Amino acid sequence: MKAEIISVGTEILLGDILDTNSQYLAVRLPPMGIDLYYMSKVGDNLQRLAETIGRAHKRSDLVLITGGLGPTEDDLTREAIALSLDEEMYVDADMEQRLRAFFAARGFTFPERNVKQAMLIPSAQAIPNPRGTAPGWWVEKDGRFIVAMPGPPAELERMWEREVTPHLADLTTGDVIASRTLKTIGIGEGHLDEMVSPLLKSENPTIGVYAKPDGVHLRLTAKASTQEAARRLIQPMEEELRRLVGDAVWGVDDDTLEAAIGAILKERALTLATMESCTGGLLASTITDVPGSSVYFKGGYVAYTARMKMNLAVSAELIERHGTVSDEVAADMARAARANADADLGVAVTGVAGPDELEGKPPGQMHVAVDDGGPGLSISYTYYQGRAATKRRAVTTALALLRRALLARG
Amino acid sequence: MKAEIISVGTEILLGDILDTNSQYLAVRLPPMGIDLYYMSKVGDNLQRLAETIGRAHKRSDLVLITGGLGPTEDDLTREAIALSLDEEMYVDADMEQRLRAFFAARGFTFPERNVKQAMLIPSAQAIPNPRGTAPGWWVEKDGRFIVAMPGPPAELERMWEREVTPHLADLTTGDVIASRTLKTIGIGEGHLDEMVSPLLKSENPTIGVYAKPDGVHLRLTAKASTQEAARRLIQPMEEELRRLVGDAVWGVDDDTLEAAIGAILKERALTLATMESCTGGLLASTITDVPGSSVYFKGGYVAYTARMKMNLAVSAELIERHGTVSDEVAADMARAARANADADLGVAVTGVAGPDELEGKPPGQMHVAVDDGGPGLSISYTYYQGRAATKRRAVTTALALLRRALLARG
Repeated sequence: MKAEIISVGTEILLGDILDTNSQYLAVRLPPMGIDLYYMSKVGDNLQRLAETIGRAHKRSDLVLITGGLGPTEDDLTREAIALSLDEEMYVDADMEQRLRAFFAARGFTFPERNVKQAMLIPSAQAIPNPRGTAPGWWVEKDGRFIVAMPGPPAELERMWEREVTPHLADLTTGDVIASRTLKTIGIGEGHLDEMVSPLLKSENPTIGVYAKPDGVHLRLTAKASTQEAARRLIQPMEEELRRLVGDAVWGVDDDTLEAAIGAILKERALTLATMESCTGGLLASTITDVPGSSVYFKGGYVAYTARMKMNLAVSAELIERHGTVSDEVAADMARAARANADADLGVAVTGVAGPDELEGKPPGQMHVAVDDGGPGLSISYTYYQGRAATKRRAVTTALALLRRALLARG
Repeated sequence: MKAEIISVGTEILLGDILDTNSQYLAVRLPPMGIDLYYMSKVGDNLQRLAETIGRAHKRSDLVLITGGLGPTEDDLTREAIALSLDEEMYVDADMEQRLRAFFAARGFTFPERNVKQAMLIPSAQAIPNPRGTAPGWWVEKDGRFIVAMPGPPAELERMWEREVTPHLADLTTGDVIASRTLKTIGIGEGHLDEMVSPLLKSENPTIGVYAKPDGVHLRLTAKASTQEAARRLIQPMEEELRRLVGDAVWGVDDDTLEAAIGAILKERALTLATMESCTGGLLASTITDVPGSSVYFKGGYVAYTARMKMNLAVSAELIERHGTVSDEVAADMARAARANADADLGVAVTGVAGPDELEGKPPGQMHVAVDDGGPGLSISYTYYQGRAATKRRAVTTALALLRRALLARG
């Protein structure tokens, strides 16, 4: 089944809104055996919209439209579908009644212009939208389909999952696609590519190697008649990859590094504390993005000045001798975090977030350390990509080092 | 001048990549007097790409293409332009030479397939790309233009700013658009709408009211023959709006709340410290996103447990009596942050980040306090929108409260 997506709205063309709906839909099509050929964005203009929808309907089995279903004069998706299919719109009495009831139940008077949300064409059926006033349209004509859904993501997503997906599943017959992502850290993209190169020629599943902010991802994608059959193709290849790559794999699919580490800490009943300067709290914030992290995260210190570090019992002598941006001070910060918060592990970051240099050290110079009461681990590097990205990269490095320390404890 | 944007790449259609290039370009067109009519995304397929480019070239004065200029077989933008214009590609000797020199300078052998990045068609000129190996194409045919630029944002953005914008500026003649955004906090969208309602009927400039994560934005947009003329239309309206709204306006355009606060602290030579529980370090991290924040930010405490709060000299008695999620404890945390770090101001957040309740209090219940040695300020509310958004909203609230405290000091 060939599909395309049309996003409607002048705000998108003006760049006021970043259209995330198309990506939401795009990732959900291959698992259903639907091939996406085009995505377009059109403004709130009847002529251009009708022309775009008409062309899409002619060349694609399925046209998914988001946006333009509101009650205002600018909302023209219904009118454009009607025009492109040369059909007349009419007010559906049942729908009008439900719409009026929706307003009455909330104690609002019914704005008469909203009656257009109760309109249909002969080829269309309404799709319920309990999260808003705009019903969708399910249009079937000449054996092909147009599905119009509202633009607000919460409304779109519910309608897609509950109403549209089940209907589409009945219609699609071709091969479906399953994919699985193995997430690794600690091995560079080039080296990983070499390690798995014997498998890269595989055609089903295919394997892709992608450098991402949280490490390097290995993505397996298989095609088969059912999801189960596709997953069975992936499984032996995943095992082979895991054998080749070893414990550099820290998670799969939607896993995050902070959640993976949280799971290890929880399982082993270990506690954690942080001390950070240049990352300014982002390390602690990332660790606490995981629901339930209060079980293992005791707390953190954002020691932004040398004075604050000393107040937190970081050695004044080490700061004096090596500067705050040094391996020695990073290690002592990790020790102090652990000691002050009475935690099993301390992790620390000190460095230069940029854009200016600090203590004569360049932006992007980072020192990361973990202290678990044993010899400890540390790492340092220099890589500057702007302040925000540099902070994020340091946080990922700290989490990866923490994971290594946890694995080393066995 | 009518324009459209085409983004090329199967990764975009698969949803693996969110295309941000189109939005980057879209916001930059109206100020140049260029109207954007369509945005499309097409996969790495020669036929479909050529067809899309051909149609765009027929209906639009300017077609901006991003992506598909790499050296691999999947990179088909050049081929598709050639096919759609019915022209032959040839290797440009100068370009080939420069490309070989680029590789030689880095000590790499030249991969022969890269020679396609030295190709042109008779209607095309190369656009330099010092950040990568893929030059762009500037195509002029039948009085209309096609501009092909690389997909990696860093390469695209440099090429757009330095190479493409100056050429386009010479070609455009129509009205240009200027806009100005006033950012406010502390007044709800509905109330602000009422306050400025006498001005909302204005047609040039127009005024829009938008609720955003950092408050409510008032956006003025004017059309005139030059940027200067458009800005002159905006200026008196901006003054009128500022008069109506008062000091709820904290910044304009790309300003951030944290930078606005940083500027006040710096100007008054005041220092700041934080103590936070449920935001887990995000407040400190946001404050330190501002370059140079080390001048006024002394440091922060992520007091994730009651024990850690008490270690930081938050009153055990208040915790016992009111629970950690309370106005009283928030105020004492702000006081303790200020005292421990020897800062002029302390700001604190305690609450329930969710998804589970805490101490019998629901997710989204937040208590925020500022202590500056005077009577202090505090605010509390309950609003849950998922863990990440709830953390962000609490940080915005804390920054807004801090700003109020600074204004109150006069």
